[in-house]
Amino acid sequence: MSDAEVPRARRTVRLLVEYDGTDFSGWQRQAGDRSVQAVLEDALSAHLGGRIVTVAAGRTDAGVHAAGQVVSFRTESRVPARGIVHGTNALLPPDVVILSADDAPPDFHACRDARAKHYRYRALDREIRSPLGERYAARVRGPLDVAAMDGAAAVLRGRHDFSSFRSAGSVVGDPVRELRELAVYRQGDGIVFDFRGDGFLYRMVRNIVGTLLQAGRGRLTPGQVEAVLAARDRRRAGPTAPACGLCLMEVFYG
Amino acid sequence: MSDAEVPRARRTVRLLVEYDGTDFSGWQRQAGDRSVQAVLEDALSAHLGGRIVTVAAGRTDAGVHAAGQVVSFRTESRVPARGIVHGTNALLPPDVVILSADDAPPDFHACRDARAKHYRYRALDREIRSPLGERYAARVRGPLDVAAMDGAAAVLRGRHDFSSFRSAGSVVGDPVRELRELAVYRQGDGIVFDFRGDGFLYRMVRNIVGTLLQAGRGRLTPGQVEAVLAARDRRRAGPTAPACGLCLMEVFYG
Repeated sequence: MSDAEVPRARRTVRLLVEYDGTDFSGWQRQAGDRSVQAVLEDALSAHLGGRIVTVAAGRTDAGVHAAGQVVSFRTESRVPARGIVHGTNALLPPDVVILSADDAPPDFHACRDARAKHYRYRALDREIRSPLGERYAARVRGPLDVAAMDGAAAVLRGRHDFSSFRSAGSVVGDPVRELRELAVYRQGDGIVFDFRGDGFLYRMVRNIVGTLLQAGRGRLTPGQVEAVLAARDRRRAGPTAPACGLCLMEVFYG
Repeated sequence: MSDAEVPRARRTVRLLVEYDGTDFSGWQRQAGDRSVQAVLEDALSAHLGGRIVTVAAGRTDAGVHAAGQVVSFRTESRVPARGIVHGTNALLPPDVVILSADDAPPDFHACRDARAKHYRYRALDREIRSPLGERYAARVRGPLDVAAMDGAAAVLRGRHDFSSFRSAGSVVGDPVRELRELAVYRQGDGIVFDFRGDGFLYRMVRNIVGTLLQAGRGRLTPGQVEAVLAARDRRRAGPTAPACGLCLMEVFYG
C-alpha cells in the first residue's frame, strides 16, 4: 500500500522487528521487568498516540534474540507506515529496532496467522569462554560429533507429538507439531541448528538442542532419541540449552 | 616446554588473548580508564604475585576488538603455563580472556618481534541500525559497490609510504609498510575487509577503510586513491571508520 493511501479508520499495522535479547526479560510484558513488548509499546504509543497493544508471532523467552520477529497492532493513527519506522526507531533503545512496517489486512494477527517459523540455535564447543562469541551463541561442553547430532535429529523431523520437549509453564494444548527442517552443521568455530516448523511448543527448540548435544557427546543414540520422543515425557529429554544461543530468524504467513 | 620443567629464574610468558573492546578504553593503560592492559595486569599480578607489566603486539584503540592479541610479560612465578590460563581467567571479567599461554624464549617481546598482523574490518551497509550486528561491525552509508572498493584496494597493496593513512597522535617514525593482502568481499549481510601486513601505522586500517568506503560510494576512483596515497598527506584520505568494526585477528612471528 502506498503511503499516500493510509485509511482514516482504525487500521492494522504489521512490523518486522529485530532485537538483542540479552538485556530483556523476554518478549512478553510483565510488571517490573524490561520486556521487548513494553519497550516497543511505549515507543509506539508515544509516537502514534493512544495506548498501543502489540501481538508478536513468537513470545521469545528472556535472553532470546530476534532477527525477524513479526508484530501486529491496531491504531487510529494516520502516520504512514514509513513514518512509523523512523519515528518510532528514534524513540527506541539501541537493542531493539523496527526494520519495516506495512499496513496489513484489518484482521491480521501476527501470532494466530503465522504458518511457520525459522529458529536458529548457535553453540560454541570450545573449552575456554569467548568474549566475542558468547553474546549470540551458547558455549557448550565438547567435543561434539556433528554427524551423531544429525543422525539423532533425523528421528525428530516430521510430524510428532513433541511433549517430551515441552517445558512446564506453557499453556496446555495440542502437542503435535510438524518439524519440517532440523539441520545441524558446523559454521566458523561453532555449530548451527536450524529449525523450521509450523509451530513450536514452550522451549521446544532449546530442549531439542539440549538433547542433541547429549547425542553429540555420545551419550544418546538415534534410537534412544526416538524413545525419548515416543515417551511423551519431558523428564526423558536433555536439559534446556541456554537462551543466548537462540534467535527467531523469520516468520512465514499464508 | 612441558609444564613440569618450568624454570626457577625469571621467565618470559607469551599469552594469546581475546577481548570484546566495546567497554574498554583500548589496550594501553591510562590513569582513570578501563584498559585491557590494566585489567589483564591486575589479574595476572593477583594470580602470580609481584607486579606484572605486559607488552601487547598491537596497541588496539578504544572500542577495537581482538580475537588473537599476543601479550608477553616477565615473571618469577613458577606457576605452569596451563595454570596461568585457568587461574587468571577466573579473575578476569567476561569481556577478556586468555586463550593460551606458553613459555617463550627469555628475550621474546610481543610487539618488537611481531613480523605481521591480520586485522579484519566489518561493515554493514544497511539503512536501519542493527541491534544484533553493530557490536562487531560498523554501520555505514550505502549502497556500496564492492568491485569498486576492490579496485581501489588494489592500488594500496604492496610496499608504500602510508603517511596519508596515518592519524596524528602516533609516534613519528618510518611510514613505509608492506600491505601484503587487502581483500574486500561480501559476507552475510555485511562487507569484510581483510588486511595482512608487516605493520600498521596509527589508525591506518580504519583510515584506509574510510577511504575505500568513499570509493564504494562512487566518490573516489582507483586513480584518485592512488593520488591520495602518493600525496603522503592525511588530509587527502577519507575519514577514520568507526572502531567497533575492527578486530585484531592474528599476529605472526618469525
